[in-house]
Amino acid sequence: MPSFKDIQDAHERIRPFIHRTSVLSNASLNKLSGAELFFKCENFQKAGSFKIRGATNTVLQLTQEELDRGIVTASSGNHGAALSMAVSNRGGKTTVVMPNNTPKMKVDNVERNGGKIVWCEPAQESREKVLKELLAETGAVLVHPYNDDRIIAGQGTAAKELLEDHLDLDMIVSPVSGGGLLSGTLCSAKEMNPDIKVYGAEPAEADDAYRSLQLGEIQANETTNTICDGLRAQIGTIPFPIIKEKVDGIITVSEEEIIDAMGMIWERMKIIVEPSSSVTLAAVLKDKEVFTGKKVGLILSGGNVDLDHLPW
Amino acid sequence: MPSFKDIQDAHERIRPFIHRTSVLSNASLNKLSGAELFFKCENFQKAGSFKIRGATNTVLQLTQEELDRGIVTASSGNHGAALSMAVSNRGGKTTVVMPNNTPKMKVDNVERNGGKIVWCEPAQESREKVLKELLAETGAVLVHPYNDDRIIAGQGTAAKELLEDHLDLDMIVSPVSGGGLLSGTLCSAKEMNPDIKVYGAEPAEADDAYRSLQLGEIQANETTNTICDGLRAQIGTIPFPIIKEKVDGIITVSEEEIIDAMGMIWERMKIIVEPSSSVTLAAVLKDKEVFTGKKVGLILSGGNVDLDHLPW
Repeated sequence: MPSFKDIQDAHERIRPFIHRTSVLSNASLNKLSGAELFFKCENFQKAGSFKIRGATNTVLQLTQEELDRGIVTASSGNHGAALSMAVSNRGGKTTVVMPNNTPKMKVDNVERNGGKIVWCEPAQESREKVLKELLAETGAVLVHPYNDDRIIAGQGTAAKELLEDHLDLDMIVSPVSGGGLLSGTLCSAKEMNPDIKVYGAEPAEADDAYRSLQLGEIQANETTNTICDGLRAQIGTIPFPIIKEKVDGIITVSEEEIIDAMGMIWERMKIIVEPSSSVTLAAVLKDKEVFTGKKVGLILSGGNVDLDHLPW
Repeated sequence: MPSFKDIQDAHERIRPFIHRTSVLSNASLNKLSGAELFFKCENFQKAGSFKIRGATNTVLQLTQEELDRGIVTASSGNHGAALSMAVSNRGGKTTVVMPNNTPKMKVDNVERNGGKIVWCEPAQESREKVLKELLAETGAVLVHPYNDDRIIAGQGTAAKELLEDHLDLDMIVSPVSGGGLLSGTLCSAKEMNPDIKVYGAEPAEADDAYRSLQLGEIQANETTNTICDGLRAQIGTIPFPIIKEKVDGIITVSEEEIIDAMGMIWERMKIIVEPSSSVTLAAVLKDKEVFTGKKVGLILSGGNVDLDHLPW
């Protein structure tokens, strides 16, 4: 588990390569939710999501020998693009194993940042098989999207910035998928304010984190039939114990609730967020009694959406 | 013509009722344009556009007797919504004459802010006829969308804020339609920095301002067949002489250039702007030699878009 010192070090290390993103508020959504909402806009982040934080923190700690062997990862998109950018910044090369149903926008984003794509089938087994073969063939170095303390420490810098700007938050809501962002958020937030409550938000259609927490050990996703293309991954063995120890709850939301929340963010806030970001607002609007009257930080994790294929 | 003092007074008057909107920049669009771009985000403004500035400045100067008679206007949407909000803030009632092809989003926006809608045909003559009848029937007070010094002074506060934040801009580009925003921008900007250049940007499909400037007197629109539903109005007799005296040029852009620019703003900046805002970036990308190497402010006038009917 990364210490708060690891997160502070990560922040110093990555600062020249990331944006310190805005925190926005919106009177109309405050009124609707009955809470005071503070949106941490990682959709405005470099490469379009928070993933650049963990990727940069990891890549900057690789040796030159590791970099020269080439970097590989498996990613539904945002980690792949971020890693490609972080590796390109050091002059290296990245190969990304990507499910063949990834939105075109995320494919373009990997390629624009210098990454090369190798396709796999959407199922987790295919992803792992193709990745394993690639590692064996090339001798390249794997940078996992979330099952890595360096990644978790990097992702924790988003909540660190949010609390530096608004230390009086009562609660933070973060999306959860593989668990890198939520575990990093927990490591930052609970250190900076021991009284703060931190919740994960997850699609009901990919609710492995929710069920894993209930049963106390990692459960597989039964479906990944969600519009949130960034939240289909399986929770990781390194983030899970952190989440299990520290989280105050995981809230699951339906596809309809996610799409409604996404539409509200677009229409009221005039900002573009991807469905995976919208689970946070969907959770706040669903479990109103938890959040009413509170100051709530919501991590809008990314803004990479295929504008030709919107859900409404 | 409003003096700079009028604009300063307007700013003090309206400050409690408006947002001081962010100024954003974007590395990718800087690279693409060869200029350093500063986007004044009036899409984040109350009621979704800069129009609240002029409307509030005007409504706050009405007498109680005028307010009691009721307020009317004709508007393709943003002025109608803004005026409805400004009048509601004072406890009055607004009726908005609206073309029956107005995007649903803008209709909803008027109604949400307490305005009542009376429909007309899209043509300018129908709009004027319905408005005239309404004024005669009700004895209400007209607040024109742009042909009014109080409106112009209010709209000028957007450029005032932009230059307060970035006094070293070489140029500003503003959309032009009726001319309220452009003339207000000219009155602010040329006073705050006499060396600054200010350009209007206009759809080629509604190029009355461009042709009026060339011929030295007001010309009618020959078509209003543009996606920019906020830029179909006829340039006003009060803004026009200000524009004629002070503007450094008007740049016309095609529908394709507008849609491309809008897509770039959405994709790269992750913010939602309406087509009428996008003429500014389209103009900068079209006449590159004018802007290259310069610091350029672009006024993103609004963000009210029908998300069910996007142009791509």
